[in-house]
Amino acid sequence: MIKRRISKAIHIGGVKVGGGAPISVQSMTKTDTRNVAATVSQIKELEECGCEIIRVAVPDTEAAEAISRIKKKIKIPLIADIHFDYRLALAAIKSGADALRLNPGNIRDKEQIKKVVTAAKAKQVPIRIGVNFGSLPPSSGRKIPAADFMVKLAMEQVDLLESMDFDLIKIALKAFDVPTTISAYRKIAKKTTYPLHLGITEAGLPRTGVIRSSVGIGILLYEGIGDTLRVSLSSQPKEEVFAGYEILKSLDIREHGPVLVSCPSCGRSESDVVGLAQGISNYLLNVKKTIKVAVMGCVVNGPGEAKDADVGIACGKGKGVIFKKGKITRTVTEREFLRSLITEIESL
Amino acid sequence: MIKRRISKAIHIGGVKVGGGAPISVQSMTKTDTRNVAATVSQIKELEECGCEIIRVAVPDTEAAEAISRIKKKIKIPLIADIHFDYRLALAAIKSGADALRLNPGNIRDKEQIKKVVTAAKAKQVPIRIGVNFGSLPPSSGRKIPAADFMVKLAMEQVDLLESMDFDLIKIALKAFDVPTTISAYRKIAKKTTYPLHLGITEAGLPRTGVIRSSVGIGILLYEGIGDTLRVSLSSQPKEEVFAGYEILKSLDIREHGPVLVSCPSCGRSESDVVGLAQGISNYLLNVKKTIKVAVMGCVVNGPGEAKDADVGIACGKGKGVIFKKGKITRTVTEREFLRSLITEIESL
Repeated sequence: MIKRRISKAIHIGGVKVGGGAPISVQSMTKTDTRNVAATVSQIKELEECGCEIIRVAVPDTEAAEAISRIKKKIKIPLIADIHFDYRLALAAIKSGADALRLNPGNIRDKEQIKKVVTAAKAKQVPIRIGVNFGSLPPSSGRKIPAADFMVKLAMEQVDLLESMDFDLIKIALKAFDVPTTISAYRKIAKKTTYPLHLGITEAGLPRTGVIRSSVGIGILLYEGIGDTLRVSLSSQPKEEVFAGYEILKSLDIREHGPVLVSCPSCGRSESDVVGLAQGISNYLLNVKKTIKVAVMGCVVNGPGEAKDADVGIACGKGKGVIFKKGKITRTVTEREFLRSLITEIESL
Repeated sequence: MIKRRISKAIHIGGVKVGGGAPISVQSMTKTDTRNVAATVSQIKELEECGCEIIRVAVPDTEAAEAISRIKKKIKIPLIADIHFDYRLALAAIKSGADALRLNPGNIRDKEQIKKVVTAAKAKQVPIRIGVNFGSLPPSSGRKIPAADFMVKLAMEQVDLLESMDFDLIKIALKAFDVPTTISAYRKIAKKTTYPLHLGITEAGLPRTGVIRSSVGIGILLYEGIGDTLRVSLSSQPKEEVFAGYEILKSLDIREHGPVLVSCPSCGRSESDVVGLAQGISNYLLNVKKTIKVAVMGCVVNGPGEAKDADVGIACGKGKGVIFKKGKITRTVTEREFLRSLITEIESL
């Protein structure tokens, strides 16, 4: 039921972003980009768990040059993350980067930007204008709210790029503060039709960062804003991809592997529901099918939720009722809970 | 900036819910309610981490009677969760429960409800009408969307309670499906001014359940809907309380202890930012102060975010710059990162 904002389409390698394309899930490597083996290994792992676009930091020429070697060994498109030095952008384009991320907060020289744009245009390489609260220019802007300043900065860059006849643009406006981020995206969504890359910046360790990112990205997605996303976590990048998909799944925007419904357990429960849910969750880690599995602890919501799932169990004292596609298939004893559920899932 | 829906106030023990009161964080015990020692011990642990209202399952008379003994040893108000048997509601009220949760899906007899309402009114005990997707009555309602059916069911119960001259009402409409939950709350928010209890039901294990809950509860809170909340997780109840506060903190709705900003780390980072963030996070577990700490890995967003925090570090190669209240206090070597940050936090 989400009415998506109409956005222009760009292509990052083979991945369409905007223009009604599925909302893609990105991540960023945490390896030293110059270490090609380590970077490729991390990207391969990310490809495995569904990462669709990868970004790598390009802090120096060696990193820019590594891109061509990395690109040869990976399947997904690669974005070069550039700060401060426009020559690294030129080197990354030359090295085969599928797109650039430029931060208008730290490359301000018009002539330098023009050189990058000319090279990007020649190779049809899109540029993300990535404004970040943490790197807003120190001067001016103090009189207007951060969100407005971020929008202003991004739109200035858009105008500059358009004045150079370049429109392969994607925009991000990230802050740690969720209301600031939401406000910035809402405003820019009305000002332009370029595709938007969502994220909450520096969201922190998974335990808190996942919550902050889910709230912020979730609110925007539910308003129809956002064409691609990256969850930023101080953790393994595969956790970012996992969280990205879970956010999309929670709003029924995309499917990606199994969904596990499980009750929180309470004083009504007469078996180890949490342990069973954990067991099934571990099993599901290697299942790619888009299925819904329910593990329920009692008769209150148990049969209702179990019926609604592809496979479900409503546990009682010492025994449980297995449901498959809404119908009871059998009653099993507690010892058989996990094995029976797995058998039913495998038979789907 | 969130404009909250105007709601009536009720009081659950000493906690005001609705009428502009802070959005309270609830949880539910997972112990056998009849085991008073275990239940009290879990509630004390929850009180420690900020749980403001606790709910216990009341599956039989013994559990209802245990409430009076539990109540003597805890500080926060207690809600009795009742299903199927109205006599358990009467016993829970008699036992001193501060509020009831009734599920209109499974106590349908008008005369029985009247007896409960009469007893609740005499003791000014509020009743939560807790509709749950998993326990919708099997008949009818199949022709209208689940959200509408949930609203219809809740409003029928509201009408019934009001016809008995009872208005100490709180409402919840929980589903596993986030769009269904949002739709149901949005609709009922327009139909009545009773306070609303938010939650995503059977959200699952923490790794996925926290995301689903953050998205669903976050979207509603940001629209100004919701007076109290419970995150349902197949995990320790203290994880539910932690997640509840993090959702509120992410939208700047409530403060609750420290906030840690930390960068995800990337190929630009020249020190172990994630390890440092983890170290500080462990230290902050025992800090109750409402402070913002930033752990940043490089010069791109590092100084900006570090300046914006109460205490922050922008790490570089082998050394880092410590910020306190927006000002650089000193430069430290990598060995001193963690200790220096802790020293600065303690000096606040």
